[in-house]
Amino acid sequence: MKNAQTMPATARLARRARAFEHSPWSAAEGLGDRHPDPIYFGNGAPGVEAQPIERLQWAAARAWAEAGGQLDYGELAGWPPLREYVCQRMTLRGIAAGPDDVLITNGSQQGIDLIARLMLDPGDRIIVEGPTYIGAMQTFDAYEASYLTCSVDEHGLCVDALEQILRESTPTPKLLYTIPTFQNPTGFSMTSERREAIVALCERYGVLIIEDDPYGEIYFGSEPPAPALRSLSERVIYLGTFSKTMAPGIRVGWMAPPPDLLGLLLMAREGADIHGHRIVTRTVYHAAQDFLDEHVERIRAHYRQRRDVLVDVLRAGMPDGVSVSEPGGGFFVWCELPEPWSTDDLLRHAATFGVLFLPGSWFYPDYAGPPRGLRLSYSSLPLDRIAEGGKRLAEATRDFMESRRPPR
Amino acid sequence: MKNAQTMPATARLARRARAFEHSPWSAAEGLGDRHPDPIYFGNGAPGVEAQPIERLQWAAARAWAEAGGQLDYGELAGWPPLREYVCQRMTLRGIAAGPDDVLITNGSQQGIDLIARLMLDPGDRIIVEGPTYIGAMQTFDAYEASYLTCSVDEHGLCVDALEQILRESTPTPKLLYTIPTFQNPTGFSMTSERREAIVALCERYGVLIIEDDPYGEIYFGSEPPAPALRSLSERVIYLGTFSKTMAPGIRVGWMAPPPDLLGLLLMAREGADIHGHRIVTRTVYHAAQDFLDEHVERIRAHYRQRRDVLVDVLRAGMPDGVSVSEPGGGFFVWCELPEPWSTDDLLRHAATFGVLFLPGSWFYPDYAGPPRGLRLSYSSLPLDRIAEGGKRLAEATRDFMESRRPPR
Repeated sequence: MKNAQTMPATARLARRARAFEHSPWSAAEGLGDRHPDPIYFGNGAPGVEAQPIERLQWAAARAWAEAGGQLDYGELAGWPPLREYVCQRMTLRGIAAGPDDVLITNGSQQGIDLIARLMLDPGDRIIVEGPTYIGAMQTFDAYEASYLTCSVDEHGLCVDALEQILRESTPTPKLLYTIPTFQNPTGFSMTSERREAIVALCERYGVLIIEDDPYGEIYFGSEPPAPALRSLSERVIYLGTFSKTMAPGIRVGWMAPPPDLLGLLLMAREGADIHGHRIVTRTVYHAAQDFLDEHVERIRAHYRQRRDVLVDVLRAGMPDGVSVSEPGGGFFVWCELPEPWSTDDLLRHAATFGVLFLPGSWFYPDYAGPPRGLRLSYSSLPLDRIAEGGKRLAEATRDFMESRRPPR
Repeated sequence: MKNAQTMPATARLARRARAFEHSPWSAAEGLGDRHPDPIYFGNGAPGVEAQPIERLQWAAARAWAEAGGQLDYGELAGWPPLREYVCQRMTLRGIAAGPDDVLITNGSQQGIDLIARLMLDPGDRIIVEGPTYIGAMQTFDAYEASYLTCSVDEHGLCVDALEQILRESTPTPKLLYTIPTFQNPTGFSMTSERREAIVALCERYGVLIIEDDPYGEIYFGSEPPAPALRSLSERVIYLGTFSKTMAPGIRVGWMAPPPDLLGLLLMAREGADIHGHRIVTRTVYHAAQDFLDEHVERIRAHYRQRRDVLVDVLRAGMPDGVSVSEPGGGFFVWCELPEPWSTDDLLRHAATFGVLFLPGSWFYPDYAGPPRGLRLSYSSLPLDRIAEGGKRLAEATRDFMESRRPPR
């Protein structure tokens, strides 16, 4: 019984290890060999031209020049000036928080992880938007969360659907995970009315809200989007990041949780990786200070131009019945096929036309949602590739819908 | 029932949140106000003089100069040249591993976290050394591990005690967490014979070994310590780090797990914080390449001198019956009081003499082990402070044992 000489190391994994068996990204990239020059709309990252490399280089030199004595253990919550800076940043989203309310993280992904770690026992219920950010579910899966999916329309999370879920779910869900502003994957934003209604509902039911806000500053109109949910209640865990306004490779984000959770989150973080990179947090501070406002203004124009090109080419070329969103900010255009067409099937067809996207079904628990939608990220591609890719997708969709016309 | 407007955010935490309520460090530092100029032997970090700041500054400049195009998402396992470099590094510890067997982490603490995440369901058993590294238990606590404590003597983990635990524990523990070389907190090292016996025992029982090896290169004799456990079996998860040979604030370590766990660990890491700081991993690579061997040789002498001063002053001044170790490497001297004296009590007494240490009881599950030992870290203090602190501790111990002589 106890002789296990040939037992593989994988013989006795934790239950949650199932969550680590599937990589969504490799599935999409694996289709790239069906065309000699595929255009991949799957990368939700800033374009290299929109990353302030020179400014970061300058800031890194400054941070490293001051590194003496700063390389010991320390700064569990993050470098205080950066914490003050992100508080200024959050005022742009309507949030009043002080540096002692903030924890600097390795990107907002780590914020999601720490909240899940603090809040979720196996089987605990969490409400997510349908569709929602894949990476958040990767994390919640690792904590064996049980999902309730709430529908989203072009005005954001549907209040009636949320109310029904809260009324009917016993036990009450612990968390609502939402991206209220230029949502991933749809690009949709919640109206002010819905924001107020959703915060009030969650307070009434004792549900904590995780507000993931990577795109809130990247708006294309003359006015900023509605203030963050965190501006309406301290019972919201706000997650911010420099990944979209600067670059994801630097891995710096932050969280502003309810104040009574902060001490516990700090200890949870200490167990996870002790603390963050001290010189990197200084680098980001020096880079952002007296620079990020102008930079964000430039990248708004940069991404708006990309959105315009993609929306124009899709609206001109897509067959009747296919909807194409026109996002007010962020990185994503969302299309939906009419019934009964499936974007899972379209993906394989489009791959032979040299264009790849992420099918909507992947943005649901178990990668198994309704196959109506598809996400196109225009953030990292050059303009000519966006135009060419949009044209290919329109052609592929037309060909797909004609060649596989359903029986009447 | 469902109206929860006044419910605090802490009302519905996960069970594991109990693990985040206690901070051992603040307890020790809180005693510092009992003396105008306390000497704190608790910091297990490199001294500032032993951190290669100038080399890191040079390396950072080089890494940032090449940063263009390197700030997107990517390099989940870590920058390939750094993975190759740590494989070279591991040959010094007798380990044969290739870059595809390695995952770069945010310090070895993140390696501990990822392994626990992959392996441990609540209540799963893990064997730890008694005493062991506090930070590892902070992590295992977050996964609701159930501990079995195995005794350690000056030749390392006791094989007979381990065998008894393995024979008697049903279910069999999943993991053994050990620091075989210059152990934290005792400074003791496992003999080659014990290494072989322990690896064989764990293979026989199907127990995976986590080998934490932050101090293996910091030896004081003419010969390196016995090869790592990972050199004896691929069923050992080896954890390495640059925190002690360079600086902890850069947060770069690595793991070499059993090859069949690597893919799962990569996905676990993606959910935790997506990936590491890309420029930091390049910085560490450039700094280490063609430099670290010489640097490590210098810091061996640096720490040996500090050990000598501390051991000499303690052996000269400590009352009869108090044992003082002479570690062959690493950062720690370990002392033990004779029965029935308690180092928990001595700590409060010593604080009034202006010297602080970490009591041995804290290095056990629930911070509640036998109060015989105490750990002194000589790594980060200047020589004169070490001498003065050792003198104070000897005086405090003498005074403590005389003033609180137990009834015969």
